[in-house]
Amino acid sequence: MTDLLARRAAVLGPNMPTFYTKPLHLVRGQGVHVWDADGRQYLDCYNNVPHVGHCHPKVVDAVASQAATLNTHTRYLHEGIVTYAERLTAKFDHDLDQLIMVCTGSEANDIAIRMAHAVTGKVGIISTDNTYHGNTHLVTQLSSRKPPIGGYAPFVKRVPSPDTLRPLGGSLAAQGQAFAASVQDAIDALVAEGHGFAGFMFCPVFANEGLHDLDPAFLQPVAQVVRKAGGLLLCDEVQPGFGRCGSHWWGHDRMNIAPDVVTLGKPMGNGHPVAAVVTRPDVMAAFRNAFGYFNTFGGNPVSCAAASAVLDIIEDEGLVENAFQSGRALTENLASLNHPVVASVRGTGLFVALEVERDGVPATDVAATIVEGMKDAGVLMGRTGRHGNTLKFRPPLPFSKDHAAQVAQTLDTVLRGLP
Amino acid sequence: MTDLLARRAAVLGPNMPTFYTKPLHLVRGQGVHVWDADGRQYLDCYNNVPHVGHCHPKVVDAVASQAATLNTHTRYLHEGIVTYAERLTAKFDHDLDQLIMVCTGSEANDIAIRMAHAVTGKVGIISTDNTYHGNTHLVTQLSSRKPPIGGYAPFVKRVPSPDTLRPLGGSLAAQGQAFAASVQDAIDALVAEGHGFAGFMFCPVFANEGLHDLDPAFLQPVAQVVRKAGGLLLCDEVQPGFGRCGSHWWGHDRMNIAPDVVTLGKPMGNGHPVAAVVTRPDVMAAFRNAFGYFNTFGGNPVSCAAASAVLDIIEDEGLVENAFQSGRALTENLASLNHPVVASVRGTGLFVALEVERDGVPATDVAATIVEGMKDAGVLMGRTGRHGNTLKFRPPLPFSKDHAAQVAQTLDTVLRGLP
Repeated sequence: MTDLLARRAAVLGPNMPTFYTKPLHLVRGQGVHVWDADGRQYLDCYNNVPHVGHCHPKVVDAVASQAATLNTHTRYLHEGIVTYAERLTAKFDHDLDQLIMVCTGSEANDIAIRMAHAVTGKVGIISTDNTYHGNTHLVTQLSSRKPPIGGYAPFVKRVPSPDTLRPLGGSLAAQGQAFAASVQDAIDALVAEGHGFAGFMFCPVFANEGLHDLDPAFLQPVAQVVRKAGGLLLCDEVQPGFGRCGSHWWGHDRMNIAPDVVTLGKPMGNGHPVAAVVTRPDVMAAFRNAFGYFNTFGGNPVSCAAASAVLDIIEDEGLVENAFQSGRALTENLASLNHPVVASVRGTGLFVALEVERDGVPATDVAATIVEGMKDAGVLMGRTGRHGNTLKFRPPLPFSKDHAAQVAQTLDTVLRGLP
Repeated sequence: MTDLLARRAAVLGPNMPTFYTKPLHLVRGQGVHVWDADGRQYLDCYNNVPHVGHCHPKVVDAVASQAATLNTHTRYLHEGIVTYAERLTAKFDHDLDQLIMVCTGSEANDIAIRMAHAVTGKVGIISTDNTYHGNTHLVTQLSSRKPPIGGYAPFVKRVPSPDTLRPLGGSLAAQGQAFAASVQDAIDALVAEGHGFAGFMFCPVFANEGLHDLDPAFLQPVAQVVRKAGGLLLCDEVQPGFGRCGSHWWGHDRMNIAPDVVTLGKPMGNGHPVAAVVTRPDVMAAFRNAFGYFNTFGGNPVSCAAASAVLDIIEDEGLVENAFQSGRALTENLASLNHPVVASVRGTGLFVALEVERDGVPATDVAATIVEGMKDAGVLMGRTGRHGNTLKFRPPLPFSKDHAAQVAQTLDTVLRGLP
């Protein structure tokens, strides 16, 4: 592995990030498990990309079969993209009837922002201040993690993220109005500075902000503010979408929100690079009139075959219901852990967070130690949130109640071993 | 097909473009041929994505085998990306020893521009005025085809493209200096306006500008100007790369240029969505220090397997040499056509252009009629250039001299049938 690390640094650059102090060298995956080069098995509670399970044979077969038949682009007619688009849009309400297929969630969000530009004729965009919507030049403007060379684009404003333990406005009850008020302030600033207001981009479960415990009514005030100002609601479903929330296929339906644009990514093709933007016909028409968009790989027959297989499997194996049941089990099991660093357990479906504090202060180092300890004990997981002190459990959906019990038991042991 | 078109318009939007007056409904591909839903065979002289041939079984097998084994991301260690990166960078000179893998050429060019930002600390970028480098918000600023909502970014300047029949500076001999002079003017303007100069992005065969017939010394003056101003040469090899030029693996080596950053895309995975940025270690370090870049799908084991299979096939089947030989045959066959609309035949390897004029004027409509006629006669091809009057032949590389003869013969018939 030392050799592989050195070779990797030579060709990818020495500061190309890896997970874990001692990086993991994976060689095989199946279902909710992966194996390293030494043959060691890990329960995967991190990876949301292999949504229907690592290496699901139906996805592999669909990709192989279509790749052997035809793989071109959308300037020719093909049944694959049409049938897939019909199936996928049927899972949306709110007149979200049309889509553009692309390759990554970043590309999808880059388009969503330009859809708001096209509909409103304005450029101002608002996001939260501890978010991540992707890696293009435009979309990275929405993240406050690292300012770009030349400074931030002035047409992007960031507002404080909602929080569970330190809610905006001082209480969970006041948080929705406080959040909406800061978005209103940002709108006013964008208008005053001449950019105008085009849209508000958000993840409906605020995953990167720490997967906060928000009432289904939380987004109503901000939605009203955005609508009143003529802006679009740009809903990034890259993480919550495709049933991960358990109760619904999409995070926005869980939050009773009717977005104008929805973006999809990671889980859509179970690892095949496919993503999409779903929107209303009027928004699509405005975008296509304003921008001459074409994506060479987007919506190719193989990508559509992978994505169709994912829909088949979610339906055939009842994975949304499973996310609900196993997610509830995981949340309950984690909530039953009795350890002073556990400050909050929250989540929806198979997207569960456990926030770690010491003496009422976010304990980033403790969370990092736990993630390493869990890996050593055979469970892969991650961290999220502003302080990186929130443990994140986000497994492939074929995750059972037994796996939930295993995770809680392992975490209990790791917590007891904390220095 | 009428039904499929209507269903397509309903879910993708009514103004989603297709090729041809009567769009083609493809169902199968193999080697240099595709078949439509009626079983009709076409010789494919358009598609450069299926670089080693449609549905090459070795690519299909590599993708299927890896997809059944493991498909994760680059925050775990994996042999696949390291081995591929070593093989690919070995094909580059000029200390271009490191890479970032992404999913699309657009993502690659979006990074390349930010590499220039990171190295120089400036933001000004220059491109030609009839180019296309991709579809992200940033990269579309380099195209003059459709101004974005809110106007063009002021830090991008566009300079007149080189041309074969209407050369800058009045003659082919003067064109290199004239091109360099306009880049110098653009640099001066960027500096005067406070943006500073970061880099010049170009396709080394000027494919979208019309695939112009440029002496290998053409780019020397502009390279000197860019270097002297401290800017980076950002070379978009999405179209010319991977041996299409026949004489070399990369277009920049054909033009005797040492770029600072090279971007790769379409042919890299034979249709699997994979792309890359190749650069020197010092540029990579500057980029990674300035930006926290991660791409979920980029460099995943399946993408690396597809890309590795493409390298194997190019080498095993001698496809670069074949591009040289068959490309020469195609160029010679086309040049031997005797018809008044043929104003210029030019190209490199299996990237060949035939410019169409009437009475010394670019004949866009005639070129469009020819493309439709060729399709009806069983040959797929496209158009390029500022006026869309340049026929473009860009087939998969396993294209033989017999195919070249067939194309010329078919074109002869179509030209004779022109109104």
